[in-house]
Amino acid sequence: MAAADQAHNDNVDPEVREQLLGARRSIDNIDAALIHMLAERFKYTQQVGRLKATKGLPASDPNRERDQIARLKLLAEESHLDPAFAEKWFNFVVAEVIHHHEQIASGSKPETETRDN
Amino acid sequence: MAAADQAHNDNVDPEVREQLLGARRSIDNIDAALIHMLAERFKYTQQVGRLKATKGLPASDPNRERDQIARLKLLAEESHLDPAFAEKWFNFVVAEVIHHHEQIASGSKPETETRDN
Repeated sequence: MAAADQAHNDNVDPEVREQLLGARRSIDNIDAALIHMLAERFKYTQQVGRLKATKGLPASDPNRERDQIARLKLLAEESHLDPAFAEKWFNFVVAEVIHHHEQIASGSKPETETRDN
Repeated sequence: MAAADQAHNDNVDPEVREQLLGARRSIDNIDAALIHMLAERFKYTQQVGRLKATKGLPASDPNRERDQIARLKLLAEESHLDPAFAEKWFNFVVAEVIHHHEQIASGSKPETETRDN
């Protein structure tokens, strides 16, 4: 059962309640898509991380990261998402990439080990 | 041009470089999808925010948030994403929702005004 279907607003007007549930079901669908896309993204950053480690390439690439942020801000503008939020969001994901990279370096095994952003 | 196509590793073995570029192109495609899905998500949280404001419903719903986190952690497990990361990610997005709600309350107009998580 999707989270939206849990009945927590029993004293709400039925029509309003249906509108609210409809929006929440869409949010739940989108969140499922986002989680699966994030999982796929980490698969690729893992792949890049292993490639860099085995080929002796530098772990970070500031130019690549700069290009990524610039592109994501443009995509955010196109889709009417706040570009500043898109940048914050990217930095949040990159922080996780770095965190997992540090776990790899220390010998522990993260569930989503990564490198490259 | 996708960010992955920028040539920043000119002294890398061509085969390795092609593998790296291939993975980066996938990361760029996934990021474009993620940005657009996030934009769509904020459209729905805006809709819920307006609905709650006009109908006098409480702005937050702790039970709904609890259900969302539990569900996203299960989805994360299914897709081999770290469930702890999924929860952190959700809280990050919710913080933005709250931030924008505060902007609405103060009378300024955020680009992605929202409520409901």
